[in-house]
Amino acid sequence: MLSVHTVNARFVRITVVVVLDILISNADLLLTLSEHGILRNASIVVEENEIIDFGKNYEIERKYGRNFDYVIDAKGMIVVPGFIQTHVHLVQTIFRGLADDLSLLDWLGKRILPMEARISAEGVYYSSLLACIELLMSGTTTIVDFGSVRHQEKVFEAIRDSGIRAFSGKVIMDMGDSSVPKELIEDYREALSSSVNLLKRWNGFEERIWYAFSPRFALSCSEECLRETAYVAREHNALIQTHASENRDEVRLVRKITGMNNVEYLHKVGLTGRDVILAHCIWINDYEMEILHRTGTNVVHCPSANMKLGSGIARVPEMLEKGINVTIGADGAPCNNNLDVFVEMRHASLIQKARLTDPRVLPAREVIRMATVNGAKALGISDIGSIRRGSKADLVLISLRDINVTPFTSLHDPYSTIVYSAKASNVKYTIVDGRIAVAEGRPTIDLRDLVERVRDIAFKFAEKIVN
Amino acid sequence: MLSVHTVNARFVRITVVVVLDILISNADLLLTLSEHGILRNASIVVEENEIIDFGKNYEIERKYGRNFDYVIDAKGMIVVPGFIQTHVHLVQTIFRGLADDLSLLDWLGKRILPMEARISAEGVYYSSLLACIELLMSGTTTIVDFGSVRHQEKVFEAIRDSGIRAFSGKVIMDMGDSSVPKELIEDYREALSSSVNLLKRWNGFEERIWYAFSPRFALSCSEECLRETAYVAREHNALIQTHASENRDEVRLVRKITGMNNVEYLHKVGLTGRDVILAHCIWINDYEMEILHRTGTNVVHCPSANMKLGSGIARVPEMLEKGINVTIGADGAPCNNNLDVFVEMRHASLIQKARLTDPRVLPAREVIRMATVNGAKALGISDIGSIRRGSKADLVLISLRDINVTPFTSLHDPYSTIVYSAKASNVKYTIVDGRIAVAEGRPTIDLRDLVERVRDIAFKFAEKIVN
Repeated sequence: MLSVHTVNARFVRITVVVVLDILISNADLLLTLSEHGILRNASIVVEENEIIDFGKNYEIERKYGRNFDYVIDAKGMIVVPGFIQTHVHLVQTIFRGLADDLSLLDWLGKRILPMEARISAEGVYYSSLLACIELLMSGTTTIVDFGSVRHQEKVFEAIRDSGIRAFSGKVIMDMGDSSVPKELIEDYREALSSSVNLLKRWNGFEERIWYAFSPRFALSCSEECLRETAYVAREHNALIQTHASENRDEVRLVRKITGMNNVEYLHKVGLTGRDVILAHCIWINDYEMEILHRTGTNVVHCPSANMKLGSGIARVPEMLEKGINVTIGADGAPCNNNLDVFVEMRHASLIQKARLTDPRVLPAREVIRMATVNGAKALGISDIGSIRRGSKADLVLISLRDINVTPFTSLHDPYSTIVYSAKASNVKYTIVDGRIAVAEGRPTIDLRDLVERVRDIAFKFAEKIVN
Repeated sequence: MLSVHTVNARFVRITVVVVLDILISNADLLLTLSEHGILRNASIVVEENEIIDFGKNYEIERKYGRNFDYVIDAKGMIVVPGFIQTHVHLVQTIFRGLADDLSLLDWLGKRILPMEARISAEGVYYSSLLACIELLMSGTTTIVDFGSVRHQEKVFEAIRDSGIRAFSGKVIMDMGDSSVPKELIEDYREALSSSVNLLKRWNGFEERIWYAFSPRFALSCSEECLRETAYVAREHNALIQTHASENRDEVRLVRKITGMNNVEYLHKVGLTGRDVILAHCIWINDYEMEILHRTGTNVVHCPSANMKLGSGIARVPEMLEKGINVTIGADGAPCNNNLDVFVEMRHASLIQKARLTDPRVLPAREVIRMATVNGAKALGISDIGSIRRGSKADLVLISLRDINVTPFTSLHDPYSTIVYSAKASNVKYTIVDGRIAVAEGRPTIDLRDLVERVRDIAFKFAEKIVN
C-alpha cells in the first residue's frame, strides 16, 4: 500500500511517502553483517517497518511474486544495513564553517558557545533538519544526538519530521568558567526536571525516537549533577552520553579539580556502564581503558573532529583489541565539517594505519562493524545494524557502477569498496523504519527554501559574533 | 561558436563538445587566487582556451552583452581555478580495490607489479580514461601522471580523449629484486630511447599534453640510469618526476646501497632542481630539507596514500615554512582509493593538525594554494592555477547551495568551505582549456559501456593474481 500525505509541521511543509511494502530486488550484493554473511543476486522484502524476508532473487520471486507497492531494482548496487552514528550535534550544523582553523579555546569560547546561546528555536529546528537530511543522504539511519541546552523540543521535532531513527536529549550544564554564556547554565535539578518532561513527551515516539540523558562533560557539570543525572537516567532506563578525554588541557583540568583522571572520575560518579556512551576518549591511560572494558562502557570515535580540532588520535585498535565496544560518529559540523559516515569510516581506518605505520591495522571490515553492529550494541538495540528476518527496515543501497567505485567485480571485497572508495554520492536509496528517505540519490522530503532559510538564520545570529 | 563532433578513438566513441566562447555569469564568488583576490557577483569571459576577461556582472554585461555560444548561470556557485594534482598513476586506476589492507611489500610484490606486468594495452587505455574522468568530476584540470612501463602511448591517447591537461611519461626501471616481474625491467638506454620517441610524438600536443621523464625510484634504477635520465630530460627541457623517501624500509635500503640518504643521493645524481618533482618525501632529515629548498625541488604530498599504506605523515608545514614548494596529489587508486582532490586537500590539513595537536596548522587557504598555484609553479606554467586575463580557461564551478555546504553566507570563508565541507559531488562544471568536460555534475564525454568494459578487463587480468 502506497499513501502520500502532507504534514504541515511548525516551519516547513513536509510530504511523507509512507510505503508499507517494499521489494528490493536484484541487488548485486547483500551485506547482511549477520550470520548470513554476503549474498549475491539477492532480494529483500519489507513489510511496514520490518525486514520480513531476504534471499536469492529466484527464491524471493517464487515466494512473493512481484506484487509490491514499491519495487526498487537494485541491479548494480550493494545493500547494507543502515549506518549508525553514535555522536553528532544536530544543533551545531548551522554553525558549519563559522569556526575553522581556530584553537580549541577560541573555537568554543568565541564561536560555538555564544552561537549556542544566541540561536533561536527556529534556528535549532532548521539546523537539526538540515543535519538529518545530510545524514540520511550519506546512509546514516540511526544517530545519537547530543541535543541542545535550549529549545531541545525543536530538535525532537526535526528528528520526527526527517524520519531518521534517533536518540537525543537536552544538554545539561550546571557550571562553567567566564567564557560560558550564562544562558547555557542551569541548576541541575531544573535541567533534570526538563529532561524528564522531554523524555515523557518523546521517548518511544513511533518507536523510532528515544531519550538520552546528556551531561556535557566533567568540566561543565558539578559532581552532584553527574551523580544525579546517572541516577535519574537509570530510573528511566535511558541511555546516558557525555564527552570524555577529548583534549589534553581538559584532562589536566579535570585532574586538577578532582584529583583523578577523566574516565576514572566519571566511573566514580556513576557514568560508566553498558548504558553509557563516552565520546572521544583520546587521552586515557591503560587503567582507564581497563575501567571501560570492565564496565562495558561504549566509546565513540570521531576521527575528523579529533583531527580538525588538533585533539589527537584515539588508540582505537588497542581499545578494540581489549574488547571495548568502539563506535563511530561525525561529531558536529563546525568541527568536522560534515556528517558523512563514509568520510568518518575512511578516516578512522587511515589515521590508525598512519599512526602505527602499518597498513594492516583497522581493516575495512572492522570499521564497518564499528559503524553498524557496534553502534547497535551501544544502543542496546538488537534489531538494527544487520540484516536479519525481523530486523527494522533500515537499509542503504550503494551504487557499484559509479566511476569512483569502478571496477567492482566478484574479486573485490565489498567492505574495502565501501570504506576506501565509496562516498555519500554513491548512496542511491536510504530507507529508515520502512520509509524511503532518499530515492535516486535525492531526499524524498520537501526541501523547498530550506537552504535559503538556513542561510538567513545563520547570518542573523552569527553576524555580530564572527565579525 | 558551438560545434559538436564525434571522434572514433581506438576503443570508445567519444563526442567532444567544442565551445569557443563561454560566459560564466552571475557567480556568487570568484576565487581568483591572484592579486585580484575574491570577487562577488562576478562573470568570466572565455574565448577559445583563454580567460579574456572577468569582473563584476554589470561590467562584463556592459562590455560584452550576452551574445555567447554557451552561457553558464553560476548563481549559487563559486568559481575557482582548476585544481592541479602533481602525482597520480592513471594506469593503476583499474587496480582499485585489489590491494587493500596489505603490507607495503605484499601490496607491491604480490599485487601491483604483477598486475602492471600483465595488463593489456586496452586495459591501460581504459584505466587511464576512467581515471581522467574521475579527476575531472572532482575538479582536477591538470595532472602529472606517473605513466606506465608498458603501453605508455595508450596513456597519452586516454589523456587526449579525456580532454584533461597533463604531463605524463613512460616509467623507467632498469633493476629490481626478485619480486619485480621481468617484463617491467629494461636496459635504461632502450627505455630512454622509447621515452624520447614518445616525447617527440606527444610533447606539446594541443599545447595541453607534455612529456615528463619518470624514473620509478632509487631502488629500481641504476645510478647511470638516473644520471642519464636527468641529462636527457634537460636536453629536451622536460619535467622529471620520481618517488622519494616514502617508506622507512626504502630509505634504509637506499642508505645501505648508496651510503647516502635518499634525497641526498638523488641530489648527487642530478635529480633535484626546479624541473624535478619528488613524490612523498616523508622520511627526510633537516639536511635533505635544506637540499630541497636550496635547489628549488618540488615536493608532492599524497596524504591518503601515505596514510593508507602506513607510510607515515610528511612534515608539510615545516617544508612550507622553509620555503619548499609543496603540491598535492592523490597517487594511485590502489593506495588511496580515489583520485579526488577534495579528499586530499581535507586530509592534508587534518592530519597535520592531528600530528602537531594544533588546529591552526595548515589552514584552508594554504592547502588551496598547494592544489593550485604551487602546482602551477612546480610545472613551470604561469597561466594555470589562478584566474587572470590571458590565463588558460581551466575553471571549476562548485555549488554553494548543496546540503553539505549549507549554510554559506558572506560571513563564511570560501577557502574553508572548499577544503573542509565541499566534496566532488558539489562540482557542477569543470572546464579545461576552454572545453566543458563536466556539465551539471556529469561528464560530457560518452561513457557508454566504460564501467562494464573496465570491470571485464579488471577481472581478466586480476583473476589469477588475487585468488
